[in-house]
Amino acid sequence: LTATADPLIAPYDPSTIRTAVDRCLDTFLSAKAQEAASDHMPPDVVEMLREFLLSGGKRLRPLFCVYGWHAAGGRGVPPPVVQTAAALEVFHAFALIHDDVMDESDIRRGRPSLHRALESKFALHHERPQARWLGTHVAVLLGDLAFAWSGELLHTAGISSARMDRVLPVVSRMRTEMMYGQYLDLVSSRTEVPDPATSLKVVQLKTAKYTIERPLHLGAILAGASDAVLRTLSDYAMPLGTAFQLRDDLLGTFGDPELTGKSDDDDLREGKATVLVALALARADPHASSSLRRILGDRSLTAAQADTARQIIAGCGARQEVESLIRRYHAEAIRVLDRGASLLSPNGSQALHALATTALKRHS
Amino acid sequence: LTATADPLIAPYDPSTIRTAVDRCLDTFLSAKAQEAASDHMPPDVVEMLREFLLSGGKRLRPLFCVYGWHAAGGRGVPPPVVQTAAALEVFHAFALIHDDVMDESDIRRGRPSLHRALESKFALHHERPQARWLGTHVAVLLGDLAFAWSGELLHTAGISSARMDRVLPVVSRMRTEMMYGQYLDLVSSRTEVPDPATSLKVVQLKTAKYTIERPLHLGAILAGASDAVLRTLSDYAMPLGTAFQLRDDLLGTFGDPELTGKSDDDDLREGKATVLVALALARADPHASSSLRRILGDRSLTAAQADTARQIIAGCGARQEVESLIRRYHAEAIRVLDRGASLLSPNGSQALHALATTALKRHS
Repeated sequence: LTATADPLIAPYDPSTIRTAVDRCLDTFLSAKAQEAASDHMPPDVVEMLREFLLSGGKRLRPLFCVYGWHAAGGRGVPPPVVQTAAALEVFHAFALIHDDVMDESDIRRGRPSLHRALESKFALHHERPQARWLGTHVAVLLGDLAFAWSGELLHTAGISSARMDRVLPVVSRMRTEMMYGQYLDLVSSRTEVPDPATSLKVVQLKTAKYTIERPLHLGAILAGASDAVLRTLSDYAMPLGTAFQLRDDLLGTFGDPELTGKSDDDDLREGKATVLVALALARADPHASSSLRRILGDRSLTAAQADTARQIIAGCGARQEVESLIRRYHAEAIRVLDRGASLLSPNGSQALHALATTALKRHS
Repeated sequence: LTATADPLIAPYDPSTIRTAVDRCLDTFLSAKAQEAASDHMPPDVVEMLREFLLSGGKRLRPLFCVYGWHAAGGRGVPPPVVQTAAALEVFHAFALIHDDVMDESDIRRGRPSLHRALESKFALHHERPQARWLGTHVAVLLGDLAFAWSGELLHTAGISSARMDRVLPVVSRMRTEMMYGQYLDLVSSRTEVPDPATSLKVVQLKTAKYTIERPLHLGAILAGASDAVLRTLSDYAMPLGTAFQLRDDLLGTFGDPELTGKSDDDDLREGKATVLVALALARADPHASSSLRRILGDRSLTAAQADTARQIIAGCGARQEVESLIRRYHAEAIRVLDRGASLLSPNGSQALHALATTALKRHS
């Protein structure tokens, strides 16, 4: 990588990395808007994606990508690393948009999900069923476009062709893993009894690999990481990713909607096959377990039923068990960083240490 | 491009090119099946995509890609050209799968569309509403996976990095153009009065550019084509693509379902904003025009209503007008080939000549 670091960006600080990524997204989208104008394309397509992309999000995948770069000895935050990180965020926008359509989620980041926002927009000029149809399908299409544009960002990031030869197979694996995870998630979420092994596999694919391992690898490869470094990053990513998703599951059912930006009833209503739920169904006494089973996935779930479900999940010890799993996985991730101290840069390792702790102690 | 031509493939002959592309797809999907098995992934994902990809299709985009290679002086059909052509076909599978979900089409290539086939599959173990939900969303996801895998096929085609630098921007443009076309198509198909200018723009984006111009360009770039060659191919692609779509529109409403593999009522029922329909609405007398408007997009369209619509479209002269437009655009495409004779290889030019004629005189 020959590009020089942007002197304005202080490395390691999450908020400056986020700002750099958002600036990159903004520049890219402005270019797309200009392109659309000169090709006489409707301007609203870019606008809708811009609103989705720049209206929040933790930018976790970009952060892991940049920290992977640092951990493997990369210095500063040069533009190609920022743009690769931004490509991951645009790919994630695609994943979220399709995810929300598939889960029929109304809320994302405390605002209407994209298909719902589009439905409201189209309802100004169309009858409700048409507006709903358009909202859903235009959202799927905007997701497709985000996928395409994430590829474009990657290809134009200024990565040397020697590096690109190592980057592309990882990108391919990441995409495929995420989609297999989504497939298992979709199919298992509508089965009667969630299978804990499948739930865990979904967590590994959709969170540990997709959110943490692959972004770390991409950043590290840009810095020319050895296979040993990549293996250490995998060993860190897998327990951390699992813990991260377990925290997400807890927040999805026991979180404060004011802080998480989403309803704490949705996971229950969708019958999401989380490890938390799988454990509760196994731990609760037969009566409570069958009550819980009846409540899960009930599309007309009431607040009272949701409270009952929460009482069962907490009462049988599943909630505490998940908390203790989070602590154990967190400790394992930290141990890996300590053991890998000779392989990883001290600053990068420290940043990964801090990020692991923030990711697990969060309230949103 | 350094790879040697496969001596088994006779160039220019469409059926041998199709066979080579299908063999490439088959090899790729077998590798994906093995990968899934060793990663403990469900085998059905690859199987479902294989069934969709290898159960028919005209392979037009691969053909145009290979003929672009020939027209720009490429010899034989070397593996990287075949694999690039196959990547286009897998991208097209993604486009068709999402298209059918968006249009709520029941039939594709004479068989149930993918989301309908999946719905039937899931109905064996789920209640109907859940089976429908799963069918739709698993289809969207398999489309996403086809998109991802088309990228993987392209990246592993063995294209030199110098050529890749010219290939990738064209691929990005192709994807974006196709999606803008789909956006315009979606939004305009549910408006009261189709706008002929928008219909034409959709035709240019979804057919002329996506089906013909960009595949030709990709093949030609692999052979190191000059900008002048690319411009000639564009000049050929635009009238041919327009004529091709007009033929498609005629077949969609006046074709023989036995030959086309799809119902001749679907376009009317969907209220597809074709140039044919836009012309008919403008040409028919006020009474016939308003009857036609009432029929278009009626989801409960009867066979008798569809016949009335066909009588109006033929009676007002719109059908004949579209036939004469097809002849005119075909002649224009042939003229471009003749004018560009000094730039294009004689064999490549002859193949493009033949393909233009087949594409417009077809019954399916």
